[in-house]
Amino acid sequence: MEKAYKRSLKQVGLPPGSLVFTGERKAEKVRITLIRYDETHFEEKEVKKVEDCFPIKGRRGVTWVNVDGLHDVEVIGKIGTHLGIHPLVLEDVLNMNERPKIEDFDDYIFIISKMLYHGKTKNDLITEQVSLILGSNYVVTFQERIGDVFDNVRERLRTGKGRLRKNAADYLSFGLLDAIVDKYFVILESIGERIDYFEELVIEKPTTQILHEIHRLRRRLLSMSRVTWAVRDVIDCLQRGESDLIKEATKVFLRDVYDHTIQIIDNVETFRDMFSSMLDIYMTSISNRLNQIMKVLTIIATVFMPLSFIAGVYGMNFLFMPELSVSFAYPLVLLLMLVIALIMLMYFKKKKWF
Amino acid sequence: MEKAYKRSLKQVGLPPGSLVFTGERKAEKVRITLIRYDETHFEEKEVKKVEDCFPIKGRRGVTWVNVDGLHDVEVIGKIGTHLGIHPLVLEDVLNMNERPKIEDFDDYIFIISKMLYHGKTKNDLITEQVSLILGSNYVVTFQERIGDVFDNVRERLRTGKGRLRKNAADYLSFGLLDAIVDKYFVILESIGERIDYFEELVIEKPTTQILHEIHRLRRRLLSMSRVTWAVRDVIDCLQRGESDLIKEATKVFLRDVYDHTIQIIDNVETFRDMFSSMLDIYMTSISNRLNQIMKVLTIIATVFMPLSFIAGVYGMNFLFMPELSVSFAYPLVLLLMLVIALIMLMYFKKKKWF
Amino acid sequence: MEKAYKRSLKQVGLPPGSLVFTGERKAEKVRITLIRYDETHFEEKEVKKVEDCFPIKGRRGVTWVNVDGLHDVEVIGKIGTHLGIHPLVLEDVLNMNERPKIEDFDDYIFIISKMLYHGKTKNDLITEQVSLILGSNYVVTFQERIGDVFDNVRERLRTGKGRLRKNAADYLSFGLLDAIVDKYFVILESIGERIDYFEELVIEKPTTQILHEIHRLRRRLLSMSRVTWAVRDVIDCLQRGESDLIKEATKVFLRDVYDHTIQIIDNVETFRDMFSSMLDIYMTSISNRLNQIMKVLTIIATVFMPLSFIAGVYGMNFLFMPELSVSFAYPLVLLLMLVIALIMLMYFKKKKWF
Amino acid sequence: MEKAYKRSLKQVGLPPGSLVFTGERKAEKVRITLIRYDETHFEEKEVKKVEDCFPIKGRRGVTWVNVDGLHDVEVIGKIGTHLGIHPLVLEDVLNMNERPKIEDFDDYIFIISKMLYHGKTKNDLITEQVSLILGSNYVVTFQERIGDVFDNVRERLRTGKGRLRKNAADYLSFGLLDAIVDKYFVILESIGERIDYFEELVIEKPTTQILHEIHRLRRRLLSMSRVTWAVRDVIDCLQRGESDLIKEATKVFLRDVYDHTIQIIDNVETFRDMFSSMLDIYMTSISNRLNQIMKVLTIIATVFMPLSFIAGVYGMNFLFMPELSVSFAYPLVLLLMLVIALIMLMYFKKKKWF
Amino acid sequence: MEKAYKRSLKQVGLPPGSLVFTGERKAEKVRITLIRYDETHFEEKEVKKVEDCFPIKGRRGVTWVNVDGLHDVEVIGKIGTHLGIHPLVLEDVLNMNERPKIEDFDDYIFIISKMLYHGKTKNDLITEQVSLILGSNYVVTFQERIGDVFDNVRERLRTGKGRLRKNAADYLSFGLLDAIVDKYFVILESIGERIDYFEELVIEKPTTQILHEIHRLRRRLLSMSRVTWAVRDVIDCLQRGESDLIKEATKVFLRDVYDHTIQIIDNVETFRDMFSSMLDIYMTSISNRLNQIMKVLTIIATVFMPLSFIAGVYGMNFLFMPELSVSFAYPLVLLLMLVIALIMLMYFKKKKWF
Repeated sequence: MEKAYKRSLKQVGLPPGSLVFTGERKAEKVRITLIRYDETHFEEKEVKKVEDCFPIKGRRGVTWVNVDGLHDVEVIGKIGTHLGIHPLVLEDVLNMNERPKIEDFDDYIFIISKMLYHGKTKNDLITEQVSLILGSNYVVTFQERIGDVFDNVRERLRTGKGRLRKNAADYLSFGLLDAIVDKYFVILESIGERIDYFEELVIEKPTTQILHEIHRLRRRLLSMSRVTWAVRDVIDCLQRGESDLIKEATKVFLRDVYDHTIQIIDNVETFRDMFSSMLDIYMTSISNRLNQIMKVLTIIATVFMPLSFIAGVYGMNFLFMPELSVSFAYPLVLLLMLVIALIMLMYFKKKKWF
Repeated sequence: MEKAYKRSLKQVGLPPGSLVFTGERKAEKVRITLIRYDETHFEEKEVKKVEDCFPIKGRRGVTWVNVDGLHDVEVIGKIGTHLGIHPLVLEDVLNMNERPKIEDFDDYIFIISKMLYHGKTKNDLITEQVSLILGSNYVVTFQERIGDVFDNVRERLRTGKGRLRKNAADYLSFGLLDAIVDKYFVILESIGERIDYFEELVIEKPTTQILHEIHRLRRRLLSMSRVTWAVRDVIDCLQRGESDLIKEATKVFLRDVYDHTIQIIDNVETFRDMFSSMLDIYMTSISNRLNQIMKVLTIIATVFMPLSFIAGVYGMNFLFMPELSVSFAYPLVLLLMLVIALIMLMYFKKKKWF
Repeated sequence: MEKAYKRSLKQVGLPPGSLVFTGERKAEKVRITLIRYDETHFEEKEVKKVEDCFPIKGRRGVTWVNVDGLHDVEVIGKIGTHLGIHPLVLEDVLNMNERPKIEDFDDYIFIISKMLYHGKTKNDLITEQVSLILGSNYVVTFQERIGDVFDNVRERLRTGKGRLRKNAADYLSFGLLDAIVDKYFVILESIGERIDYFEELVIEKPTTQILHEIHRLRRRLLSMSRVTWAVRDVIDCLQRGESDLIKEATKVFLRDVYDHTIQIIDNVETFRDMFSSMLDIYMTSISNRLNQIMKVLTIIATVFMPLSFIAGVYGMNFLFMPELSVSFAYPLVLLLMLVIALIMLMYFKKKKWF
Repeated sequence: MEKAYKRSLKQVGLPPGSLVFTGERKAEKVRITLIRYDETHFEEKEVKKVEDCFPIKGRRGVTWVNVDGLHDVEVIGKIGTHLGIHPLVLEDVLNMNERPKIEDFDDYIFIISKMLYHGKTKNDLITEQVSLILGSNYVVTFQERIGDVFDNVRERLRTGKGRLRKNAADYLSFGLLDAIVDKYFVILESIGERIDYFEELVIEKPTTQILHEIHRLRRRLLSMSRVTWAVRDVIDCLQRGESDLIKEATKVFLRDVYDHTIQIIDNVETFRDMFSSMLDIYMTSISNRLNQIMKVLTIIATVFMPLSFIAGVYGMNFLFMPELSVSFAYPLVLLLMLVIALIMLMYFKKKKWF
Repeated sequence: MEKAYKRSLKQVGLPPGSLVFTGERKAEKVRITLIRYDETHFEEKEVKKVEDCFPIKGRRGVTWVNVDGLHDVEVIGKIGTHLGIHPLVLEDVLNMNERPKIEDFDDYIFIISKMLYHGKTKNDLITEQVSLILGSNYVVTFQERIGDVFDNVRERLRTGKGRLRKNAADYLSFGLLDAIVDKYFVILESIGERIDYFEELVIEKPTTQILHEIHRLRRRLLSMSRVTWAVRDVIDCLQRGESDLIKEATKVFLRDVYDHTIQIIDNVETFRDMFSSMLDIYMTSISNRLNQIMKVLTIIATVFMPLSFIAGVYGMNFLFMPELSVSFAYPLVLLLMLVIALIMLMYFKKKKWF
């Protein structure tokens, strides 16, 4: 996400509306999946050519065309022409660095959102752009790569559980957005676990390395927060919008997703606060360590300097030093040294230095 | 409160409107209490089956149904069906991670709020979600567990003191919100006491442990502040709302609760400021300690290094060192050492190092 | 002010509108003063019973009833009943923790404000709540204790100087608010003096104690800023309000008081900035001191360690050490030591360590 | 500017609208200058008595009366009476602590602004309040002392260059405001130079004194920023206002001044950012110095402690120490010491400590 | 950019609307380029005299006049007179310190923007002001120097690719703004690379010099952020504006540029966050280094002080010290010293000091 400025350079200097895919090629080939359903029927198939989906408009039931992989610009172009989509919308579909946004073109609504999900490890957070075109009886979704967060929605469509099959295309797009936002909670939980982990580490062993990783995590949280805010705005816009494509009944459900995004933002804020706490603790932890080190040094120096001095005095070579010839002087001096050392140690004990 | 993201995972991936309880089961069994009253009558009983409360609508007086324990999804469902509540509202009732909010469904108002109260010790702050459905002549409240902050309201209903019995259901919901907000003051006081306690400790004995606890307290305050802000919005919304369910006369009282939430927010802000003061004091306290330690070390080194050097000089084995054979040289050198030590100490005294 | 949450606990759990005095009893007995005036007449007396003031409404001229001491709930109740004041207003009059606010009840306006004035010493800042009820031809003020900032207003009423006697009750309430805000400037000046005092101290002698007092002063400033903001809102509301009780001519004067509150807020902001400057200076002052200490230690160690080493070398007991028997070796070594010490000192001089 | 609260105390306790001059008397005597002009005529004279200017209203051309020195309250009063100015406006003219503001009284507009200019040295920044009353055919300006930033305007009036003589009174007030804002750029430049100067100093020689001066400069910038914001609001208000006194053609020019104030605010923001950079650099500069000092100490100690120890070993008086009688032992030990010292130094060299 | 206040001084004191060039003379001579096109024709030439472009209004197709170099005030004046441009607009064209802004004069729209591009090296960031006047059938652009970011636009005009030739003047100005904003991405990328570079350096070798450069980079980012915000406002204003000069079809494209500016602002925010992370890391890096240094010192002192003390004891000259005459005492003492040193080292090893 932080490298957004890099990839978008591909489009710099081209005339606006040019169809250029700005992402890395993440899917081997474009995969187009077609789902058609109404309350009684359900049909799901993978099509070879995009033309196999046509016509989309004007058919009974809801048509959901999902495109995985965006490097084949022609496929996108054909869908765009068939449905009468504005060229800039297609350009946005292909630009992988768009912010989540919503645009209402009267006969269709264009939504860009970001899916977050884990890659192979929990440390590997994948951000994938999803573009969604909602028409009167169809939803077209574009994704960068195969694999998404919509399996639940597909399953519910197949089994006919819940309200999905009974409702129109607007309810399907709500379902997809709901699935995206639901996944954010999962990501949030894994970030929360990392924070808990670092919080302990930062007291025990405050290294620059950990600070570095904390900042990396914080940056991830920040970019997640930015995505969530934008998605929140998208959903708010959908819910308040005047578009005929969104039915009143669906808006109640959108308000629910909206509440979820606010909940996520709330949690992100709490996390950010925990990060700044960690930084405070880290800094004071280092300062405390310095104090600890200096205490050791000071104790050692304070105990041994006077003793060495005494030894030095009786190592002087004056001819006339009466103590030197006293027989019990040596053990007495040793005893004196012991007493001095003990007094010093008691002083530090009293000062609670150790 | 900080773990909100964890528990809500239970609902991730389910179709919206599914009734799933997302909290931990905190009450052994669901307890349903029914209170019916008007200005002259009062009736209070615990019912076994939820159906014993029905019908609720269309009866004389005000009916207050309170449900403690939410794990029995069926009970919630039955009430919902009986009163014609939207499925999403019931889902929200069961989701323990909702933010305080208000939704107006014309013939009923749905309010989610959070009760704060102490558990067994003052350190144990319990946050419990209360959902409230206000209809024309009824109030239904849902709580996670037995025990709440409404005992005062019940007592006033029983004895008929105050305005409660003379007013309608909207006044009862005001009374419940008022009781919730009143309890915030009690929590605030206990947080204030902890802050006072830490404020002294932080000067006397600044340990990383204390810093840690300060941050924990600060986080609690933060989450309390977030709840209060949301409750403030809920009450503001109620008070300004156009709903017929809230009478003009009640709005004056709601404005009063509203003022209380602002007062709480004010206090929370003062507390937050005190926290940042504490952090400053903590940091400088540590720095001052380091200075103290270094002063001890420097005084010791500055006093004994020159002395040891002199002793070293007269410990040299040169054949020709005339001082060595002078008879009073030894006491003279001892005296010299004493003078040097005194000068050093006076120097530090003058510099106010001790 | 910081303890607001504590005292208000007295009202927690009571039915709304209950008349309970939440402050500490600050006046020995309730004192009621009655002033009646128009352009030609002036009458001022202390009344024993509150009934002696009645009737208030419908008389010629302006009636100002001032009540010092609020512990006698009955007096407040009687006035409330006589003037037809809403019970919640009376509750607010008795709750000493209200924020400054204004409420318009059509036939009267209710204003809560805070007086700030010094107690016996300048360090002793007293915050006292003043409640003001402005009717068509009367003003009723409630204060916690005897002594206020209105003596100037009274004097101007007695002598008939200025516009006070020529105007109606709204001008009197403006005069009272003006007197309250004017007093803020006096408080501000004393805080400014304290800041100047600390600013010097913080460079000369940065102790944790001073930091503590700075934070205390900053908190006072903060609470003062909060009061001023609220008072600003009250006056803004009065000035923009539609109430018939406030004449157009008076609004120009209110705009003037409004400007004063903004001026105060401006000054408070400047002060807050000075506080953060002080904290920076404090922190660097401590760091500089540490550097100073370490320089002393380093100079001492750097000068004496090589010297002691040389002394140590010639204190070794090797049989074959030719230098030992050279006759001028001892003074030569002493000279060498002196040269080394001087070189070291010159090095530090060049580095500007002292 | 920071002492605003002090001087305004003179007005505390007086009835509103009292004419009291709250500044220090800065001009020896009041000087009244009268300029009358239209496109063809120009007349400029200093008048002894303010009555010599009258009548002002209803004459041909534009009349500009400038009053330097405000301690003679009577002069202000006479002008006020002659032009029918509200008493509170006159009070504001005399109160030197007003914020820049604008008030529209239908037949005249009252503007308070602040001139900034240098005194004798660049370090000496003078803030002077200018009050401006704009009527249909006149402008009256009040200043605290002789000397202002309007000489350019006067010169242009005299020579008839530019649009001034061709336009009405509203264009003259625009010209005066423009001159005030233009001067801000000059001040800004001198502050910029100081910042550049400090920026170098802070790395080379970070003393508490410099920090102190940086904070003083920052505070000056802050107060300048506050003035500019307020002036921006004044001009914005003039430009958007509905007053008949401001012609449409003049508003375009006012928009230009408005742009200038925004430019100044932009620069001030950049400067504030530079200040916080300087503070960061200052802090790390001090920390770096401490590290430097500690390195010197550590190198010295690490080199000489082992050497002194070896010398100490061979200074022991054991009877049986075979090395002592070896003839080349002494030079060998010296060599050993040299090797140890070199190894230590190489270690620090490798660690890049010097 | 930071020196804006300096150059604008040239205009201080002049009557408004005076044509004075406030920049440094960057182009040797003024170069005027004329491009005329419609869907079928394209004409491009450099003209000697500005009059060669006239007439501009009322001709078929779109006329784009580009002026490089602004020091010849007369050229600007002639264009202004020919097209009927307000004098203040021309003054703004010549003032190189204007903020990006837009002004709608009904028959033309005046836009000021800033181009950012690299000079000879990547470190050399050039900010150049572009003024653009958009009329019904013409666009006039003014630049400070030869060389700009519009080559792409020219190329597209020449080749007739894209929509440029098919659209009117408003689409051309969109194209120019688009080119300017596109270039920001390139700058952003180079800043991003510098940040990556510094991020590594700051852990490895935290010098004051690096901190200084980081702050310089941060300031550049800041000024870029300010430009982008202002450009965003300009484009937002264009897109929402009511002007007949901007067609509905073009507004969709403007919304696209608007999205790009938001994307840039997003990235800038991420960068700023990375800067504050770097500062944190820098500070802790220095503190860690201090800890490291102190550990070395403490280890050395703690190991050698006790050893030296023992050597000192046996260097005392008491007559009666039985150990001295024991034959294996010397090796035993050496062994004891070794053991003590090892114990000390093990202690530090256990404490993980090295």
